[in-house]
Amino acid sequence: MAESLTKEKEKEVDLSEFPHINQGLAGIVAFSTTKSFIDGQKGELIYAGYDIDTLAENATFEEVCFLLWNDRLPDQQELDSLNKQLRSERGLPEPVLNYIKSTSESAEPMAVLRTSVSMLADFHDKETGDSDKFRQNKAISITAKIPTIIAAFDRSRNGLNIVEPLDTGSTAFNFLYMLNDEEPGEQAEKTMDLCLILHAEHGMNASTFTGRAICSTESDMYSAVTGAIGALKGPLHGGANQAVMNMLMDIEKTDSDPVEYIKKRLEGKQKVMGFGHRVYKTMDPRARILRGMSKKLSEETGHEKLYEWSEAILKTMKDEKNIDPNVDFFSATVYYSMGIKPDLYTCIFAMSRVSGWTGHYIEQAENNRLVRPRAHYTGEKNLDWVPVEER
Amino acid sequence: MAESLTKEKEKEVDLSEFPHINQGLAGIVAFSTTKSFIDGQKGELIYAGYDIDTLAENATFEEVCFLLWNDRLPDQQELDSLNKQLRSERGLPEPVLNYIKSTSESAEPMAVLRTSVSMLADFHDKETGDSDKFRQNKAISITAKIPTIIAAFDRSRNGLNIVEPLDTGSTAFNFLYMLNDEEPGEQAEKTMDLCLILHAEHGMNASTFTGRAICSTESDMYSAVTGAIGALKGPLHGGANQAVMNMLMDIEKTDSDPVEYIKKRLEGKQKVMGFGHRVYKTMDPRARILRGMSKKLSEETGHEKLYEWSEAILKTMKDEKNIDPNVDFFSATVYYSMGIKPDLYTCIFAMSRVSGWTGHYIEQAENNRLVRPRAHYTGEKNLDWVPVEER
Repeated sequence: MAESLTKEKEKEVDLSEFPHINQGLAGIVAFSTTKSFIDGQKGELIYAGYDIDTLAENATFEEVCFLLWNDRLPDQQELDSLNKQLRSERGLPEPVLNYIKSTSESAEPMAVLRTSVSMLADFHDKETGDSDKFRQNKAISITAKIPTIIAAFDRSRNGLNIVEPLDTGSTAFNFLYMLNDEEPGEQAEKTMDLCLILHAEHGMNASTFTGRAICSTESDMYSAVTGAIGALKGPLHGGANQAVMNMLMDIEKTDSDPVEYIKKRLEGKQKVMGFGHRVYKTMDPRARILRGMSKKLSEETGHEKLYEWSEAILKTMKDEKNIDPNVDFFSATVYYSMGIKPDLYTCIFAMSRVSGWTGHYIEQAENNRLVRPRAHYTGEKNLDWVPVEER
Repeated sequence: MAESLTKEKEKEVDLSEFPHINQGLAGIVAFSTTKSFIDGQKGELIYAGYDIDTLAENATFEEVCFLLWNDRLPDQQELDSLNKQLRSERGLPEPVLNYIKSTSESAEPMAVLRTSVSMLADFHDKETGDSDKFRQNKAISITAKIPTIIAAFDRSRNGLNIVEPLDTGSTAFNFLYMLNDEEPGEQAEKTMDLCLILHAEHGMNASTFTGRAICSTESDMYSAVTGAIGALKGPLHGGANQAVMNMLMDIEKTDSDPVEYIKKRLEGKQKVMGFGHRVYKTMDPRARILRGMSKKLSEETGHEKLYEWSEAILKTMKDEKNIDPNVDFFSATVYYSMGIKPDLYTCIFAMSRVSGWTGHYIEQAENNRLVRPRAHYTGEKNLDWVPVEER
């Protein structure tokens, strides 16, 4: 816990009186960053200079990765080189594959992803130095392997053959290929690629913040990404998209009217997943883009009902509570229309967000300070010891 | 990322102008807690009501675990019951043992510990509910298994037989037994037990904070402890005790005078590990207790030279920089005198601190709010898209 050679010069905190507790660190500005900007009032999201709409329309996920690691878009040679490196890094070390094949079939996919990424550390080439180049190589290696881990576990738990990654094609194409043992069509690839772009980065959310806190002890990138996966897994963060789908499936199963179902939840003060956001006070721009995709896809795949329900729920939440949907709400129906199992949705979120996590790791490592806030103690003091026999 | 049903009511942060960046969250009070209190001016440390000196003198590590999970000491029956449960939970699931045996011998022990704890999640009985009892059972299970993981990997990487845990004896006794395939003497057990007590809990340090941030998304205890291990691994946090020993060994290897060695580092503006602390402005009370242990042990084991060097370094740092040693400084020489390899020191820290991490998890889960601070964006905005061919 030694932090530095020189004595800390910081404002003394008087914890003897009841201080202001920054619950959830709401409104506390923890870092400066060049990775993303969110204007919650306008519903604006920018990744390293580019508006999310611009990126959704023009970029590929691999370009977004380069952007988040370098704060600029790649030229053709750099993009070719990145694609080549990503493709060559897709394979998993044998012990990681063995774990995936032999673990409990009922293990949670996010837990398996967390363990597998952690295990990758044991097999990473020991390169010397901790330069930017070294960190980017690690980021590329982790980003390339996450889709392979997800697809391998999903097939293994269902008793299917594990499909080796291709050394061609985009991240989106290769993931769907490994998941289904079938090359995806152009539309499916494009939809998956767009989902990866939309989830790549989002300021100081809980998982990114967790990754930066881990990085701040000068711990390694595997530790940071593993911790971030653990944070994303929670239903108040990445786990929400799975919870949205479970809600829609519950409406179907109980043959409920979606509007009545939501009103009943609101009356019972239960959470409605996929709505509200700490930062956005209007519709999340990602929800806006996904809404259009969801409409189109559900029509194409015969899931119109799901889309109609979603719109009815959206309207109810707006009328009753004046709350807008967030990114999780429509991503659930998009993945469902693509035939992906609900308990993989959060893994797909991680497959995308790893680009942002590692971008933030690189940024934190370049200008680090140990993250160590304070706590206010509300317990007793100076209690006398009583031997166990007398308690 | 949906947080709650009701719209967030929080102070709007104006991020358009340059805000105050809370570097490292220094001085920010993030939570209230009943787990521990630190008076950095007086050099006082309290766990849930009891001064660290009182605990060091009277308690066992298992009593401290109960204290951190329940905010009170156990009666005889509760302590017996906890000991019984801890002992019965020491064994590892077969796939975790297989991983430990088959991973790279050059893997970092802290990385193996991180992966193994993450993997335990796949084999935990699916109990229903998320009551306090349920969380305590998880905490007991993880706390019981960490020593087994550390000892198994250390023996495996050295080509030695893995020693099964005993279903008797204290955590300290059983750990030393599994590590050395030999029952420890009373003094060794007592020393290890005291080290476990001293490292168990320490306010809002980076690993505990990481664990609470992960818990705040409503993620599970395995995710939180795995993330905390990743944070502890860094040399600015738990990794410092290993770094202290490396420094002492470097002094020996280069046949240096310790005072000259330290002065040269200070002149070169290099870090001297094991000194200074964000919170303490006087000697860390744990360092004080460990200092006495280090003196006694080094005399008993013929490592007087190491202790003398430590005292010389302490005096130099005080004279030159007016900085006091922290918990890491003397724990290094204590573990070294016990014959434990330096790259296991941080694992032993984790073996103890898991009690604090899980105590904080239980506290956070009972009164949760999502941890989501903000970042100040310093990059560009509204850049126009340029096709890759034209970049």
